[in-house]
Amino acid sequence: MANNNNHLYAAIIHRRPDFKFSFPWAKHIIFNPIEPSDPLYPVHRASARVVIVIGPSPLKAEHLDQYPCVELVVGTSAGYDHIDLAECRARNIRVTSTGSAYSEDGADYAIGLLLDVLRRVSAADRFVRAGLWPVKDSYPLGNKLGGKRVGIVGLGSIGTLVAKRLEPFGCTIAYTSRNKKSQVPYAFYPNVLDLATNSDSLIVCCALSEKTHHIINRDVLTALGKNGIIVNIGRGALVDEKELVKFLVGGELGGAGLDVFENEPEVPKELLTLDNVVISPHKAVLTPESFANGMEVVTANITAFFLNKPLLSEINLYD
Amino acid sequence: MANNNNHLYAAIIHRRPDFKFSFPWAKHIIFNPIEPSDPLYPVHRASARVVIVIGPSPLKAEHLDQYPCVELVVGTSAGYDHIDLAECRARNIRVTSTGSAYSEDGADYAIGLLLDVLRRVSAADRFVRAGLWPVKDSYPLGNKLGGKRVGIVGLGSIGTLVAKRLEPFGCTIAYTSRNKKSQVPYAFYPNVLDLATNSDSLIVCCALSEKTHHIINRDVLTALGKNGIIVNIGRGALVDEKELVKFLVGGELGGAGLDVFENEPEVPKELLTLDNVVISPHKAVLTPESFANGMEVVTANITAFFLNKPLLSEINLYD
Repeated sequence: MANNNNHLYAAIIHRRPDFKFSFPWAKHIIFNPIEPSDPLYPVHRASARVVIVIGPSPLKAEHLDQYPCVELVVGTSAGYDHIDLAECRARNIRVTSTGSAYSEDGADYAIGLLLDVLRRVSAADRFVRAGLWPVKDSYPLGNKLGGKRVGIVGLGSIGTLVAKRLEPFGCTIAYTSRNKKSQVPYAFYPNVLDLATNSDSLIVCCALSEKTHHIINRDVLTALGKNGIIVNIGRGALVDEKELVKFLVGGELGGAGLDVFENEPEVPKELLTLDNVVISPHKAVLTPESFANGMEVVTANITAFFLNKPLLSEINLYD
Repeated sequence: MANNNNHLYAAIIHRRPDFKFSFPWAKHIIFNPIEPSDPLYPVHRASARVVIVIGPSPLKAEHLDQYPCVELVVGTSAGYDHIDLAECRARNIRVTSTGSAYSEDGADYAIGLLLDVLRRVSAADRFVRAGLWPVKDSYPLGNKLGGKRVGIVGLGSIGTLVAKRLEPFGCTIAYTSRNKKSQVPYAFYPNVLDLATNSDSLIVCCALSEKTHHIINRDVLTALGKNGIIVNIGRGALVDEKELVKFLVGGELGGAGLDVFENEPEVPKELLTLDNVVISPHKAVLTPESFANGMEVVTANITAFFLNKPLLSEINLYD
């Protein structure tokens, strides 16, 4: 175990080589993260008690083997599907994420995508930029948000904020989640298929796990129907992308707002020409304001660890 | 005055020739609107007590001269800057608009444009469609809506709904309006310049009149500042468009979401290449759902008139 004298160097950065990164918090806190190019790297790698995982850099068993003294894995993103939680549990390593630091951004973006798909904002912008307004005069109408039934897949920190934002638009809000929440006024459906059957749009914002992989499958898309809209700001693999593309290309789904994809940065090329699809490069939670929030949470977790205080946003590995 | 026997034919359609129009309500109500191509048009024109103005078709003194018996002008849009209200007042003609029938759509679209500009939704979509994600990897970050000061120019039926929608996003909301509203919790500024000075974004949703023409001028844009965002879903002439273009091109304004322009369908070509501008072809209030609402209001106003009942959404010509 490191003692108080060497905890200055007891945390280390873990990142995919192509994942460029600056250290906005390095000057604020009590450790000095280093990079593989640093000549001291092998020493710190062998002694680090904290591993800071940058963005979605994978942290699997073979990576963990490089950090024999690690006690805490600090994620810098809200999601943690890139971290092998079972392996961490087996090694008695604790894990933190940034908790709800990015949740408002995620919820805002979900509303932005939903409005954009329904009201065809991006498509209208493309129409005008192409010089078509004076030629074609009018643009196909979108649909109104008010009165629609919006189903939220995962009423966690993002989903709850999505619901709150939807309320003044006059939507009927329902959700599915692992458990029914006693405190919320929205209708609960025990599974996503029932939710889809009773929704005009679905907003997918649950965590990705073995249980939620392809939670939006062919049956769910069929239940949502021809005018249904899918917004995904969670993870690409929550949706069976091949099926989604088939439904969109075949006109069996109304539209989609997609911030995430199964094989980023690859986007199915069939989507690139559809006017009822809004695509963005996994940026729902990336604003400078939220990044600063996230870095504060990262710093607070590391500081708490070294001061033996409770962690701020520890992931329950026994759930 | 027409009597009860001829009121079936006592209403007439007035529209710009290029303004194509179908008659969704014709089968529901007690009159039969007709078109200039109808051989009976001269008869009806001379006897019509109600003139139905389609969309933004101008209705000035020379047009009113064609309808010597008109007592009521029924607008089919929310705005009424295309109707010469002073002339109607002088001729003792009453005027109705569609009131708040389209207001929810307008408010929804304003939020959509604000989120789109702030979070760069359309620009990100363009980025991905251009195939740049695998090449450039990341896209410039947008900004967070929460914590921002949003100023609403005109707290009428749309502005009020915009404010309600903004509340759960965690914005600080302020407004300027002809009068301070006693019932609302938002800060009131007596003029738009003070509002702009104290806002990060402005949402322009007041009616266009002589008093509000170019209400967003050079001084207001300067007060809003380099990171400021303008959303205009009102009328193009509320904004001094030449100045707006200068500010955007020169980087003196953060961005703009524009549904309306001074010389529609012409859009200043300088805007068409800017990534911080979202453009749409005057469609903020056009959804089938709201169009149906609007037509219900039109029908109700005409019916009320012929039944000598109070009009639903009469414009106060003495304001």
